[in-house]
Amino acid sequence: MSKTIVAIAGYGNIGKYTLQAVQAAPDMELAGVIRRNPSAGDFPELAGLKVVSDVKDLDVRPDVVILCVPSRLAQQTAEKYLKMGISTVDSFDIHDQIVKVRSELDSTSRANKAVSVIAAGWDPGSDSVVRALMQGLAPKGVTWTNFGPGRSMGHSVAVKAIDGVKDALSMTIPVGTGIHRRMVYVELEKGADFEKVSAAIKADPYFVHDETHVQQVDSVDALNDVGHGVNLVRKGVSGETHNQNFEFNMSINNPALTGQVLVMAARAAVKQAPGCYTMIEIPVIDMLAGEKEDLIRKLV
Amino acid sequence: MSKTIVAIAGYGNIGKYTLQAVQAAPDMELAGVIRRNPSAGDFPELAGLKVVSDVKDLDVRPDVVILCVPSRLAQQTAEKYLKMGISTVDSFDIHDQIVKVRSELDSTSRANKAVSVIAAGWDPGSDSVVRALMQGLAPKGVTWTNFGPGRSMGHSVAVKAIDGVKDALSMTIPVGTGIHRRMVYVELEKGADFEKVSAAIKADPYFVHDETHVQQVDSVDALNDVGHGVNLVRKGVSGETHNQNFEFNMSINNPALTGQVLVMAARAAVKQAPGCYTMIEIPVIDMLAGEKEDLIRKLV
Repeated sequence: MSKTIVAIAGYGNIGKYTLQAVQAAPDMELAGVIRRNPSAGDFPELAGLKVVSDVKDLDVRPDVVILCVPSRLAQQTAEKYLKMGISTVDSFDIHDQIVKVRSELDSTSRANKAVSVIAAGWDPGSDSVVRALMQGLAPKGVTWTNFGPGRSMGHSVAVKAIDGVKDALSMTIPVGTGIHRRMVYVELEKGADFEKVSAAIKADPYFVHDETHVQQVDSVDALNDVGHGVNLVRKGVSGETHNQNFEFNMSINNPALTGQVLVMAARAAVKQAPGCYTMIEIPVIDMLAGEKEDLIRKLV
Repeated sequence: MSKTIVAIAGYGNIGKYTLQAVQAAPDMELAGVIRRNPSAGDFPELAGLKVVSDVKDLDVRPDVVILCVPSRLAQQTAEKYLKMGISTVDSFDIHDQIVKVRSELDSTSRANKAVSVIAAGWDPGSDSVVRALMQGLAPKGVTWTNFGPGRSMGHSVAVKAIDGVKDALSMTIPVGTGIHRRMVYVELEKGADFEKVSAAIKADPYFVHDETHVQQVDSVDALNDVGHGVNLVRKGVSGETHNQNFEFNMSINNPALTGQVLVMAARAAVKQAPGCYTMIEIPVIDMLAGEKEDLIRKLV
């Protein structure tokens, strides 16, 4: 079976782990890494790889470009490659825009006979597949998605924007039934008043509805850990039978799992008809490396 | 959106719960129940429904027949309907024959422009979807499927075949890492020797490799409980990152969940191209009731 040729666009934290997942995939060939600075820079792992600033400078045309760019740039970057007839996958994670972005990228994808897979991270992404499956298994009922313990990028950025904050980390702590506690660690600017900063954080829209604890630390960097997790619970009714209970848990390295899911999506992209897809619209088998009947034998 | 018209073939325990799941599905219309005895018999819930011995006697032709027959009859029953151009779904659970049955039903399905979905119970079935997803999330690693606590039909039947056993129940108890303890409850024939029966059970190929405890009871019927469960665990590597941990748990009414999964499969059947599918080959969204964009908005 011929290998899927992929390029990675963007080389931040997710790009780095995506490169590892591509290199570990037996069915993928890396065309190269696309970044503003077309050099290996400070990354020893990029030495010997093709690093370019434009997809056209790669030696081979990729089947799929894996977008490791910030969510707000995902759509416009996808459009650019799709218009060249190159498929894209991303881990776009702004939940309330997914339907709109999917619809717009669907048109571009079809017009250019390409495939885009969006929201292919772990949530949205692989968690979405589990949530959809649980919904089917118990059509009436309640699902709770409990995140963490792990860093919340959005909440951390909101804290950093507050006057007197030099660096900040907001940890999401699951307390069950979809409710989260926020543990906020702040490193203050010289002369900043902790009590004022703490009050400002607790009054921020990101925190005002949640139980929030703020602690001052000497170094936020010393707290750096990319571990994360989820506890996805559904309790509901199958047919007429109540009290059917389902639970999905994971404890994972966040960017490593995101990179792996992007690779699953890239693998699936070359197997779909032109259009834009979320992960719940793709057969799971298409996301796996290996021969179909062998996968069925081992996994079904 | 027009409703999917389904018939239920076979009215044992699974058929009964499948009827409830069909009646609870907003997007399904029941054409009737097909059984050897074309009457409501002792089942009050069948009164007022169309009960026939031949699919041709139904008032409306079903899009899908949900097969609630024993696994060993599933393939031949599916062939019969597929040859009429009617799609079928079943919860065939003989793991090592799935690839072969799928291949054979695939030919019949394509030739008759119909769809068959096989192995659509909870294991194989919905568990398979989770196992496949976990395989993708951590391509290197180990998966353990821990069943129970719950009745094992196969093991119970094996015990009933032993001389001196009047009735028997074998409970599967998960002890982790895919290892199971067998708790066997036996009701003996008059004059049977418990020690001899116990030794025969422990020497049986079904039990010889597992920790097995045999207990004599007055009534096996008094132990009847259709609860079951699973604890599906994968520990593995995403990209180059080890110790990624995933777990899926459920505690459920066994036939109720099987009936619900059959309904998910029937719903998906009418959306696939002709052929035979296992659940990991079908997008999860196709198994759900509701409008596509609305499902994406709520579940992704």
